[in-house]
Amino acid sequence: MNRIDALREKLDQLNVDIYLETKLANIRYLTGFSGSNAYLLVGRDISLFVSDGRYKEQSREEVKDADIFIYTREITEFKEKLPEIKLRIGVPKANITCELFEKLKEKLEGFELVLVDDPVSPMRMVKSEDEIEKIRRSQEVTDRIFTEILNRVKPGETTELDIAAEIEYLMKKFGAEKPSFDTIVATGPHSALPHAKPRKVKVKNETNLLMDFGNYLEGYSSDMTRTVWVGENPPEEFVKIYNIVKEAQERAEEEAKPGMTGKEIDALAREMIEKAGYGEFFGHSLGHGVGLEVHELPRISVLGETKIEPGMVFTVEPGIYVPGFAGVRIEDIVVMREDGVEVITRSPKNLIKI
Amino acid sequence: MNRIDALREKLDQLNVDIYLETKLANIRYLTGFSGSNAYLLVGRDISLFVSDGRYKEQSREEVKDADIFIYTREITEFKEKLPEIKLRIGVPKANITCELFEKLKEKLEGFELVLVDDPVSPMRMVKSEDEIEKIRRSQEVTDRIFTEILNRVKPGETTELDIAAEIEYLMKKFGAEKPSFDTIVATGPHSALPHAKPRKVKVKNETNLLMDFGNYLEGYSSDMTRTVWVGENPPEEFVKIYNIVKEAQERAEEEAKPGMTGKEIDALAREMIEKAGYGEFFGHSLGHGVGLEVHELPRISVLGETKIEPGMVFTVEPGIYVPGFAGVRIEDIVVMREDGVEVITRSPKNLIKI
Repeated sequence: MNRIDALREKLDQLNVDIYLETKLANIRYLTGFSGSNAYLLVGRDISLFVSDGRYKEQSREEVKDADIFIYTREITEFKEKLPEIKLRIGVPKANITCELFEKLKEKLEGFELVLVDDPVSPMRMVKSEDEIEKIRRSQEVTDRIFTEILNRVKPGETTELDIAAEIEYLMKKFGAEKPSFDTIVATGPHSALPHAKPRKVKVKNETNLLMDFGNYLEGYSSDMTRTVWVGENPPEEFVKIYNIVKEAQERAEEEAKPGMTGKEIDALAREMIEKAGYGEFFGHSLGHGVGLEVHELPRISVLGETKIEPGMVFTVEPGIYVPGFAGVRIEDIVVMREDGVEVITRSPKNLIKI
Repeated sequence: MNRIDALREKLDQLNVDIYLETKLANIRYLTGFSGSNAYLLVGRDISLFVSDGRYKEQSREEVKDADIFIYTREITEFKEKLPEIKLRIGVPKANITCELFEKLKEKLEGFELVLVDDPVSPMRMVKSEDEIEKIRRSQEVTDRIFTEILNRVKPGETTELDIAAEIEYLMKKFGAEKPSFDTIVATGPHSALPHAKPRKVKVKNETNLLMDFGNYLEGYSSDMTRTVWVGENPPEEFVKIYNIVKEAQERAEEEAKPGMTGKEIDALAREMIEKAGYGEFFGHSLGHGVGLEVHELPRISVLGETKIEPGMVFTVEPGIYVPGFAGVRIEDIVVMREDGVEVITRSPKNLIKI
């Protein structure tokens, strides 16, 4: 069954005649379209892709399982393709602004517009083998960059910003499309901020270096964090927290099984860090789904109620951030299989000194 | 008068007691905050910045003219800071999802929530001299990259993707934060698509090369397009369309005066291109406002009804795209002054052969 047919089966549950998709990642998932402006209507007898003149050619090449409608001035021109009866159209409330919703209500007079929960994002959680391959290829670029970048860091010379620039340069050089989020490069106490921006600050000798980056390739995202030591003599406290994070990370990967909730998987790592006395220094989720978006469902956190099934792809990224001292985070991408997780990330996790 | 006070003066017109800002670029404009999650409440006696624990330190450093409230689980915890009377709270309909609006209505029981037109984006149109300086510094990086990149293109060797990678690498090297949009690098017939993605295709000898890029620096954006010839012998037809675009671009810059509408400025270039017989090949707007966002108000297009005032910053970017042959676009950033526009972009516009 193709993805649009699978969505069709949810129309009854949504209690609508037509579902109007407004989220680009969902439209890409359903039709293959990779451009920046599109809508998709799916009803029992209709499957209509809507875009503007810039995407006339591209939609003909890319869009499958849907008719194509190119509007001239306003998206609501698609109205002419709908039967003239009072249909009930569902719009995903998380993916539409109040302004657009008001406009649709005004222009689609005669139809009944209702807000619904996005039914497509949950469909995207379990990946096909083809999707997993794309994530793997995307992560291969990330792994290759990590190997390469370690040779390019010169203590006392290279800045955090230089490293971020090199990383993003290599993404394109190695065939990826662009960063999937703002690259994080942080050293020393600055690395204790989980969302640190790279600074024009030189990497000192004898300091930790945290790098968190990922790229899009064929639409699919990668995401990895590694923390290395620049120099020869990491202090005992650093080695200690590094090992706690590494063990917590590896425990979560080893013990996560299908049927566990995101919350239970989160707990595998969180408990170890808490037992080691660093619970208060691990202030974020263990992970998040990865696919057409770098942050998507399922949640792997204390709020994660979804049971993790085979085919779901997510990150495992515990961290310990000691203010004023250093932060350590280790992050892999994994795919849940029948017997546990397969780790997609290839970069080593032992404490590397450069 | 500070910007928050200026916004306060609009509360009567909006017919609300409090305006709840949800758009990050507007919040940055009003308070200086540069992070990725924030809300701002402005009433007659209140000015409250709201964010989460990740931004505790940063908001203390950056936020001016507002009290700071850090929530634990949900943004609506700010309710405790509001007086317990039935206030009318306006939310900008273009900047909020229906989901968040529903949630606010539920959690802020006792208050009256209404959708309003965003009052801040129009305030941002006229820039201060300080803002203009920031745009200038951002554009200086872009100009510097253009000079540098021309030396790095090797016909038969460098790909479009290589050039895009170099451009974005140089942004960070020259001190900018990141690209303000996906860098466009296109050669030959591919350049006739106004939003072409860079390909893994080598730049041929004797072809045109169109590059459209910009970066953020201190939060402000630049944006420039140049089209050059790779080789020695541009065909007559190419030189012809290049000169039409250049003359149309220069005419718009020379004849645009304060008090003209965006539509009238658009017409200065459009008329020339139409008279030369290429009207159907110029399918986009002449320009757009630039500032904290790379695309912002005012509109410089056939739909531009706003009168352009001194201090407004916008692009002037006519183009001609001949399918199957080539595209030419030339784009500057300009600021309207009392006596006409000042061109911020420094890169040359004569037809460069490399």
